[in-house]
Amino acid sequence: MVDDAQVKAACGDAATFDPYGDTLREECGVFGVYGHPDAAAITALGLHALQHRGQEATGITTFDGQRFHSERRLGLVGDAFSDAEVIKRLPGQIAIGHVRYSTTGATILRNVQPLFAELDGGGFAIAHNGNLTNGLTLRRQLIRDGAICQSTSDTEVMLHLVARSKKPRFTERFIEALRHLEGAYAFVGLTNKKLVGARDPLGIRPLVLGELDGHPILTSETCALDIIGARYVRDVEPGEVIVFSSDKVETLRPFPQVAPRPCIFEYIYFARPDSIVGGRSVYQVRKTMGMQLASESPADADVVVPVPDSGVPAAIGYAQASGIPYELGIIRNHYVGRTFIQPTQSIRDQGVRMKHSANRAVVEGKRIVLIDDSLVRGTTSVKIVRMMREAGAREVHFRISSPPITHPDYYGIDTPDRDKLLAATHDLEGMRRYIGADSLAFLSVDGIYRAMGFEGRDPVRPQFTDHCFTGEYPTPLTDRDGEVPVRQLSLLAEAS
Amino acid sequence: MVDDAQVKAACGDAATFDPYGDTLREECGVFGVYGHPDAAAITALGLHALQHRGQEATGITTFDGQRFHSERRLGLVGDAFSDAEVIKRLPGQIAIGHVRYSTTGATILRNVQPLFAELDGGGFAIAHNGNLTNGLTLRRQLIRDGAICQSTSDTEVMLHLVARSKKPRFTERFIEALRHLEGAYAFVGLTNKKLVGARDPLGIRPLVLGELDGHPILTSETCALDIIGARYVRDVEPGEVIVFSSDKVETLRPFPQVAPRPCIFEYIYFARPDSIVGGRSVYQVRKTMGMQLASESPADADVVVPVPDSGVPAAIGYAQASGIPYELGIIRNHYVGRTFIQPTQSIRDQGVRMKHSANRAVVEGKRIVLIDDSLVRGTTSVKIVRMMREAGAREVHFRISSPPITHPDYYGIDTPDRDKLLAATHDLEGMRRYIGADSLAFLSVDGIYRAMGFEGRDPVRPQFTDHCFTGEYPTPLTDRDGEVPVRQLSLLAEAS
Amino acid sequence: MVDDAQVKAACGDAATFDPYGDTLREECGVFGVYGHPDAAAITALGLHALQHRGQEATGITTFDGQRFHSERRLGLVGDAFSDAEVIKRLPGQIAIGHVRYSTTGATILRNVQPLFAELDGGGFAIAHNGNLTNGLTLRRQLIRDGAICQSTSDTEVMLHLVARSKKPRFTERFIEALRHLEGAYAFVGLTNKKLVGARDPLGIRPLVLGELDGHPILTSETCALDIIGARYVRDVEPGEVIVFSSDKVETLRPFPQVAPRPCIFEYIYFARPDSIVGGRSVYQVRKTMGMQLASESPADADVVVPVPDSGVPAAIGYAQASGIPYELGIIRNHYVGRTFIQPTQSIRDQGVRMKHSANRAVVEGKRIVLIDDSLVRGTTSVKIVRMMREAGAREVHFRISSPPITHPDYYGIDTPDRDKLLAATHDLEGMRRYIGADSLAFLSVDGIYRAMGFEGRDPVRPQFTDHCFTGEYPTPLTDRDGEVPVRQLSLLAEAS
Amino acid sequence: MVDDAQVKAACGDAATFDPYGDTLREECGVFGVYGHPDAAAITALGLHALQHRGQEATGITTFDGQRFHSERRLGLVGDAFSDAEVIKRLPGQIAIGHVRYSTTGATILRNVQPLFAELDGGGFAIAHNGNLTNGLTLRRQLIRDGAICQSTSDTEVMLHLVARSKKPRFTERFIEALRHLEGAYAFVGLTNKKLVGARDPLGIRPLVLGELDGHPILTSETCALDIIGARYVRDVEPGEVIVFSSDKVETLRPFPQVAPRPCIFEYIYFARPDSIVGGRSVYQVRKTMGMQLASESPADADVVVPVPDSGVPAAIGYAQASGIPYELGIIRNHYVGRTFIQPTQSIRDQGVRMKHSANRAVVEGKRIVLIDDSLVRGTTSVKIVRMMREAGAREVHFRISSPPITHPDYYGIDTPDRDKLLAATHDLEGMRRYIGADSLAFLSVDGIYRAMGFEGRDPVRPQFTDHCFTGEYPTPLTDRDGEVPVRQLSLLAEAS
Repeated sequence: MVDDAQVKAACGDAATFDPYGDTLREECGVFGVYGHPDAAAITALGLHALQHRGQEATGITTFDGQRFHSERRLGLVGDAFSDAEVIKRLPGQIAIGHVRYSTTGATILRNVQPLFAELDGGGFAIAHNGNLTNGLTLRRQLIRDGAICQSTSDTEVMLHLVARSKKPRFTERFIEALRHLEGAYAFVGLTNKKLVGARDPLGIRPLVLGELDGHPILTSETCALDIIGARYVRDVEPGEVIVFSSDKVETLRPFPQVAPRPCIFEYIYFARPDSIVGGRSVYQVRKTMGMQLASESPADADVVVPVPDSGVPAAIGYAQASGIPYELGIIRNHYVGRTFIQPTQSIRDQGVRMKHSANRAVVEGKRIVLIDDSLVRGTTSVKIVRMMREAGAREVHFRISSPPITHPDYYGIDTPDRDKLLAATHDLEGMRRYIGADSLAFLSVDGIYRAMGFEGRDPVRPQFTDHCFTGEYPTPLTDRDGEVPVRQLSLLAEAS
Repeated sequence: MVDDAQVKAACGDAATFDPYGDTLREECGVFGVYGHPDAAAITALGLHALQHRGQEATGITTFDGQRFHSERRLGLVGDAFSDAEVIKRLPGQIAIGHVRYSTTGATILRNVQPLFAELDGGGFAIAHNGNLTNGLTLRRQLIRDGAICQSTSDTEVMLHLVARSKKPRFTERFIEALRHLEGAYAFVGLTNKKLVGARDPLGIRPLVLGELDGHPILTSETCALDIIGARYVRDVEPGEVIVFSSDKVETLRPFPQVAPRPCIFEYIYFARPDSIVGGRSVYQVRKTMGMQLASESPADADVVVPVPDSGVPAAIGYAQASGIPYELGIIRNHYVGRTFIQPTQSIRDQGVRMKHSANRAVVEGKRIVLIDDSLVRGTTSVKIVRMMREAGAREVHFRISSPPITHPDYYGIDTPDRDKLLAATHDLEGMRRYIGADSLAFLSVDGIYRAMGFEGRDPVRPQFTDHCFTGEYPTPLTDRDGEVPVRQLSLLAEAS
Repeated sequence: MVDDAQVKAACGDAATFDPYGDTLREECGVFGVYGHPDAAAITALGLHALQHRGQEATGITTFDGQRFHSERRLGLVGDAFSDAEVIKRLPGQIAIGHVRYSTTGATILRNVQPLFAELDGGGFAIAHNGNLTNGLTLRRQLIRDGAICQSTSDTEVMLHLVARSKKPRFTERFIEALRHLEGAYAFVGLTNKKLVGARDPLGIRPLVLGELDGHPILTSETCALDIIGARYVRDVEPGEVIVFSSDKVETLRPFPQVAPRPCIFEYIYFARPDSIVGGRSVYQVRKTMGMQLASESPADADVVVPVPDSGVPAAIGYAQASGIPYELGIIRNHYVGRTFIQPTQSIRDQGVRMKHSANRAVVEGKRIVLIDDSLVRGTTSVKIVRMMREAGAREVHFRISSPPITHPDYYGIDTPDRDKLLAATHDLEGMRRYIGADSLAFLSVDGIYRAMGFEGRDPVRPQFTDHCFTGEYPTPLTDRDGEVPVRQLSLLAEAS
Repeated sequence: MVDDAQVKAACGDAATFDPYGDTLREECGVFGVYGHPDAAAITALGLHALQHRGQEATGITTFDGQRFHSERRLGLVGDAFSDAEVIKRLPGQIAIGHVRYSTTGATILRNVQPLFAELDGGGFAIAHNGNLTNGLTLRRQLIRDGAICQSTSDTEVMLHLVARSKKPRFTERFIEALRHLEGAYAFVGLTNKKLVGARDPLGIRPLVLGELDGHPILTSETCALDIIGARYVRDVEPGEVIVFSSDKVETLRPFPQVAPRPCIFEYIYFARPDSIVGGRSVYQVRKTMGMQLASESPADADVVVPVPDSGVPAAIGYAQASGIPYELGIIRNHYVGRTFIQPTQSIRDQGVRMKHSANRAVVEGKRIVLIDDSLVRGTTSVKIVRMMREAGAREVHFRISSPPITHPDYYGIDTPDRDKLLAATHDLEGMRRYIGADSLAFLSVDGIYRAMGFEGRDPVRPQFTDHCFTGEYPTPLTDRDGEVPVRQLSLLAEAS
């Protein structure tokens, strides 16, 4: 979504959640269920399983046959929906829900999804994972036509487009609205009769169909099915619109068929290791990336040490392929939580280990291979390498189980600006020096495709979108590339 | 505004604030200031002085030359704006603010005013005292045309009408929007250049113009000028639109001139006694009503006892005119506050005196004249009469310093449904019996006009709107009287 | 109690609650009930009626036959005990409760009463109105003997004295502890078998006995009986210890009989006007003080104006005795509440009227007699006189219905230090000039006794303690007058 | 400490934090620093590193040369001390702090440590890890002697003993108090001059001495030194009392020397893997236990799967020793946090995986060796085995890297009652059947000693206390074994 990067830049409070400012962040996860008597509780559980996709805010909207009910909160699912009273305020057998990364503190509760509108034909709620590359352009047109936007979320654009459609039936209005959109989206929507899902024509963001006691579920990842014992049915297909109502399921394909290009970062970073994405076990893909990395970039070392927890599966793979023992050389503090002690400068200078600490017994006197899944700004890596050396590591060989990130994302992943991406501004040797490792290697782009079971990347029709590594964006970037790039206009600052 | 009565009916939580469910409630007060360096702090003080017009929520919106800032809260002005940090978040030299009666708990923060919209030409904020009698009808049309309403407040209708106007200049759009409205309104609005005020053609709700250090102020009552040492300039006239910008003041009269009919209840009940409304001291009017009442309905009694605090000025007048001594026979507990102990039934049956208690030393053995300003449901009066008797009163003569309320209001006063109004369902003797007084008398309708300085009510062109006493409504009641009466449609229930 | 004055001096946050820093404050009210099935709810209601005696904190402790239960909160009774859940957590048929003036914000919840200790023979809870003049001396001795004090309240001293008594029976231990005390106290205490009350030998602080459905009640004022429909039985006598248990009532008089000297300030200032204190109606006493004042210090004026609400009864009396009409020349804002807007300096300089505002229609062009009940620092009076003049008063004659306060209190009333008392540092003409009135007069000391029904003050055996006016303290002031005056020692600063 | 088990039993809210009710819990961690300008911030960081020892409450007390300052909170260190304002309220160069497991919600803030008392000679604060086996007996005696206990913590007993000592010097009083104690303790204490530490004669609970920029630190584990870059100096010895003041360090050994018996559970379960306890790397010990387990109880299987995170080091050891590949067959949800969704029964019946989920890609069709570090009630193990089978595991061989727990702990570890311990009520085959595994094996008692570097357990003078496995308690259990076992007496229930 559009607003977050700007808001975050303005506030700088991302540090609260990522002390090293050095990770990628998915912006959303969605969940919807149709016809289940425990719809809200099931949605809360599903969102809990999707928590890794967004920790800053969450919401659930239900329809009880007469009214819509909505509860939206800043914070974690477990905090928002652990109270039985809150679930009781969400009656009904249809529900959709959302987890969302990054808001600026209490500032923009009105941006928390699902968003709702009372249309002429009844209420409509929607939740969105992805990002529209023409969202601001559409918003500007809508305001020019007299629309009043209450949020700064690009998802609200979809509400207005549906509201303004003159088509008679809801599904037609929904599809007419979709036709205006560019970019990446996985929507779940709710009316007084229907649960609707839609995935963008390239299938950039994931959406899967599950089933629990005969009731359909739409959600971002299979782990949200597993938590409630639901069965995985199939992936919603790129470009598919699927509509559940009391008497039927409609599946529509309103867009011309194109070759899908799901986002490869789901495998590398975002999806939970126990999820099955596009038919592949995320854990196995990551482990295989580690094995592939061991074969591409071996290291003469005594122990393989994962950066917890992101590097663990690849490190297991690297260790198995290389025969070097796998050891926990870095211990993660499980209580980092949402808040963070702000130490004084004098302490900070000593190099505080709030999140990770070295396991000296494993590291001291050893040549270690450090494994992580990606390298963004490199600030964390610097600290981890230094921590390893201070704990007595004799050599530190850094291995990254994905290629260098050289381009920002515009499809719902919050990446730093290009000039903050280490690989966009340094060559390999420059990165190695910056990080302070004895050697540094990345998995090749072809290597990543190999880990996915291909011979390599198809240069003509790449099997995935891998723009962060290659700069090849699969859709127009209208907001960015307009004659005058369109910027978010938010004249109102409000604390709630 | 439209939503409150319904919402309250649904929730019944009015009892939290009015243990006897037996008062009238003004729904709003407004304040705006242009060009003052302390605009937000001044607005907060003005709203504090208007607190009697609405205790449930409050908000302030400012413009600082670049951005709009808004802080809206449930609760009292003193709680919302006592923190210097909150005022600091409201920079700028133009500000508008609002106090509002009744919301349903935390339910509808999004209804709290000022409301804001980002229009094509820039931001626009508005605050409203009054009620549109065609608000729901307009809302239905807007939604049919694709508008998305975020609040259930009729004030939002005004935002949409301005947003959709195709006129080139803001003032023209604002006036075009006003032309759609029926009912009562006193608006203050804020753009990035202007402070605007408007009062409905009949002047049902009040709006006055003041001045502080050369900076104009618009507000509901003069007491909001007094608190900050501002000077009263004049009343905004019925049907007047007044626009302040950096280089000029425009005053426009876009409506055909009609005879004004300000609401007589401002004098009887709502305005603060130290306010000057329509050129009259509210305190003096109320005291004169008491004198008039003494002459219309004398009583053979030992003491005059006001129902605190509503009956105090009239009781002073009654005592002076009758020569019967004025005494505090009822003591008010000053700490009733916003919350209320819920006693168990066994205690309740004994007749708890949470808010008032009898001053036995004054009452015992005496014939008392009890004075109150109005009689709505009568439930409080029953309890007060019983309390007087239990404290030993020999006789209780109840005198009301206004006429019987027989009709509901549709212009921003929250009145019960007709069948809950005691005077709509009982004759005088029936009311006396219900209340349990030895005698009961109301001030006559002509008497009330006499207290205002007239010979009586002009039956052809009544000088005020007095529909609650007479049933003569001064405007169409479109929402109520449509072929199918239009009801508020709020499909969404949300706790924030 | 001992701690408050110091704590407040340190923190200065009293201003939050008294914007003009210019009132006296009672420090406590107590309530206890024995054997009633709704003991906690009844206690909450009683405390609500005593709210004027202390607004900063409140607590209730009950015994349910097996365990003690306690809920203690900062803030008002209505906020603390309005929730049925809180009352449910206070089961049992015996309860005591407390309201307390002044704590420093959240700082000292552990000081909030009732205090509780688990003694050898079982639990014991106590609530206290008054102040021990040897409290710090006793505390020092106890600590020297190895006691650990958790609060800084002098009430805790009583707990330790009871805990350390070697007497076999509780009542004996309680009385042995009382023998150590000097100063003023009205205690209610609770054990697993008994409700106990005690009043100091001079009866400085009030304590009355009531009865509800056959169940005894002990409380500070009769208004706490009225609110629940309880019957007033009699005052607990000075020096009396009264003990209720399941099968009997014991009344003990362990101290040598001395002439009682109840605190005259209860009549002047603290008690609620509808309370009966020492057999006299507080309202009638205050009104008679006003009449007495009119005869001692008449004024040639057009209107009598009370300073609301403290001056109202005396103003009614003054008006009746003088024949000058009583008018509301000052309007009180009912929403001052607990928090207070902090205006900027530029606004403050204009003289903000947060709490009071002038009713110009009454004041303009008039010679007014302003009536208040007491004069402490004079800071409020300065502002009120100025406000009257700004509203057009031609002459302002200030009349105080009590004598000049020249000495601090040590018995539970929070008075400023001597050098802050206007009457301790200025003669009458100096005070008049400071306040800016055209004339100033106080009720004489004899006049106050006359208003109480005496011929005047008995100089040999004064009927009341009136030390604030005369400097004659009725008990030793051990803490103050020790060789080295004992100071509160609080080594610990903690926010909760 | 004494109160928790009972309180928890009463309230059952442990489930909030441990959904399966099936773990052991250390009750505390302590930290103290002397003479550092950032004493409070350093303590907060140290406590953060000790968070695994207690997640329910935390506190810090400092002395600034004149006053003591204390901040105590329910919840995590990161929540309590992340605010710079809170740290600012803790000035001074001496600080002690505490993390604590289990309080019953908000109930007992007064139990949160450090506890403080104002003694005759000045203030004294103390924090405690361990449990006194005669704490209740001492408390009973103290109360009989007139002491008033404000907490239900056995730590308060120590405060009273110090307060009542008649010795002239603080250190003497402290040691005199220690002489009354039985059981396990690691104390850090603070006076206006000294930082003091003490470890029980057997050294049951750990305490280490570190140094930062020349300033001494006392804390429970070395990981609290690492986080701030402090240097580990040595373990405080069993029975040692160490006193830091401005000009010297005193180390005293007031107790007769006995063979130390540190608690073996620190190695198995409590200490953080990167800590060095008694000179041994906890990680290496655990990994060696896994290797030892592989040799004692091999399994014919395809993958080794750790129960995360408790089983990870042992599983790595087991995999290395057995040659069976280590794989993440169970994924832990990192967002379980402090609150927990309460699903409805219908969902619960389907077996919700809130905390763990199966990684089907690893498990399906495989024979797996599940490794965990201990087995308490077995309730979690049942669910995990079932989860493995539902994910398609062909065989599940459960291996526990410690012996069966057959006896409760009385030294500061919260163990269930004996009849809730699976190994106390079932034989091996019974346990296997209960858990549903294909095979089950525990590490032998001798095996655990071997993993610690010994030939086996010395049956005459066991090198550790291992009472949970053997029932040999190293100290008297006075409270438990008294003629009438002493129970905690808490007559007061209070929500804060």
